[in-house]
Amino acid sequence: MLENYIYYLDLLGTFAFAISGALSAAEKRYDLFGVVFVAFITALGGGTTRDLLLGSTPVSWMDNYQYLYVIILAVIFTFIFHKQIQKWRKALFLFDSIGLGVFTIIGMQKALAFDIGIGFAVIMGVISAVLGGVIRDTFNNDVPLILRKEIYATACFIGAFLLIALGYLGVDIQIGIPLTILTIFVIRIVSVKYQLSLPSIKQHRE
Amino acid sequence: MLENYIYYLDLLGTFAFAISGALSAAEKRYDLFGVVFVAFITALGGGTTRDLLLGSTPVSWMDNYQYLYVIILAVIFTFIFHKQIQKWRKALFLFDSIGLGVFTIIGMQKALAFDIGIGFAVIMGVISAVLGGVIRDTFNNDVPLILRKEIYATACFIGAFLLIALGYLGVDIQIGIPLTILTIFVIRIVSVKYQLSLPSIKQHRE
Amino acid sequence: MLENYIYYLDLLGTFAFAISGALSAAEKRYDLFGVVFVAFITALGGGTTRDLLLGSTPVSWMDNYQYLYVIILAVIFTFIFHKQIQKWRKALFLFDSIGLGVFTIIGMQKALAFDIGIGFAVIMGVISAVLGGVIRDTFNNDVPLILRKEIYATACFIGAFLLIALGYLGVDIQIGIPLTILTIFVIRIVSVKYQLSLPSIKQHRE
Repeated sequence: MLENYIYYLDLLGTFAFAISGALSAAEKRYDLFGVVFVAFITALGGGTTRDLLLGSTPVSWMDNYQYLYVIILAVIFTFIFHKQIQKWRKALFLFDSIGLGVFTIIGMQKALAFDIGIGFAVIMGVISAVLGGVIRDTFNNDVPLILRKEIYATACFIGAFLLIALGYLGVDIQIGIPLTILTIFVIRIVSVKYQLSLPSIKQHRE
Repeated sequence: MLENYIYYLDLLGTFAFAISGALSAAEKRYDLFGVVFVAFITALGGGTTRDLLLGSTPVSWMDNYQYLYVIILAVIFTFIFHKQIQKWRKALFLFDSIGLGVFTIIGMQKALAFDIGIGFAVIMGVISAVLGGVIRDTFNNDVPLILRKEIYATACFIGAFLLIALGYLGVDIQIGIPLTILTIFVIRIVSVKYQLSLPSIKQHRE
Repeated sequence: MLENYIYYLDLLGTFAFAISGALSAAEKRYDLFGVVFVAFITALGGGTTRDLLLGSTPVSWMDNYQYLYVIILAVIFTFIFHKQIQKWRKALFLFDSIGLGVFTIIGMQKALAFDIGIGFAVIMGVISAVLGGVIRDTFNNDVPLILRKEIYATACFIGAFLLIALGYLGVDIQIGIPLTILTIFVIRIVSVKYQLSLPSIKQHRE
């Protein structure tokens, strides 16, 4: 059962990430291929980077066609609903925040199967969750948003450390995982609602 | 014999891609190393990405020095002939279009040797052909051209699907391969001549 | 003993590279996570790219926590001393130039352990040394500096060829390695002092 809900949340997150990629590509007036391409790297870029760094190849999205179908669905959705996308924005933000937690968990679990330190598993979890967005912005020739403004990667870090702490405390993983996803989700929601952000050096200076 | 003509067309395509990289770097006033670097990633970036995703390492251009020699030759050519490059533009465009077809075929064949779905072999073929240009534009700090304006990746997709269709129809691969290269070549030439392009979401909106 | 001084110089170079990344991120007003992220890819991006191309995974910085600690130290250092960073600029430039030589050597040695040509080992050495800076500038949405203005990669190339030449001449590797690091260091210092640079095609044209 555990694998099942993780699996569906993973597809939901992939859907939200792909739409965020497709919308950013539409903003740049990319053509259909460009939109599919950016949707693709936004949704799969984080997991791909993780797989490459770990040496887990062929990379995981080549295992089955589910991710591809979800991304194509997301692009079709974007083409049809882009005029009313404002209406969907809240739902997409929720899916995106769920995706953030699920991708972190999946990235950590994958990393722990390799013989690397737990600190690196945390990094792999965060990379899985956030690097798709960073690559999207880089290809779009924008300064990556998440490096600048929001508590995004930080939510993943906190969740990742929580999962490890719960493990040390002997909490069952079946409870630890949903709790971690929920934590990342809540931090993200709260930080956006109250516009929280991390300090930057320049602000410091002023 | 088959391997032979593929081999020479591959080097011809590499030459054309390297020159396109070198010219874009010259445009940006990069120094000699910068020109070589951008020529290198333009010519080899697609195949390298494919090899990394598949886990075929050390990546294929480390097998022999041919690619390296062709790229250095392309840079020398660019340094000598950059003033008259307009004269060469038509020939380079033809070489580039040949390269597009050959890279797609080589990428697909390489992918099919791994245990992945045929849909992913198509994606690997297209990535082999187009990602060098995307990485070039990203390093040059430009919005990737092929995501925006021309039927470029689309020609590769059509060719890739044709090759698979021909395989299902039982057509000999010795005929299927040149037919695929020719198809990609012709689509590319025709689409540039008649300035065809894919729809984008923004155009849609207006 | 040889391994020892290489090891400490490697950490020193990592420290300098991480600070250069952290400073560039502060310049862009990235938040704390952004600063850590850019410090990280600047310091480790070259070695990571080399490891991926060679297929040496999990990539080498996952072997132990030393690199991570040094990078975090560099970020803390940057947060504390950014106001007086001008005072430190000369020392950082020296560390950076040492790092350049050490990274080249380490990259070549790693590559030679794989079954690839010596020319590719040279390329792997240079990539180890310079690609972190190129990736930093790309993520920061800047045109990569080293592609444009300074004798940077060139110093690495000269050092790499020197090491190979010394090997052919039968010079002991225990002498060849410090000599190579010193050569790269001196070329870098001299080229910055006298503002030497490589020719570019556009300058040519004018």
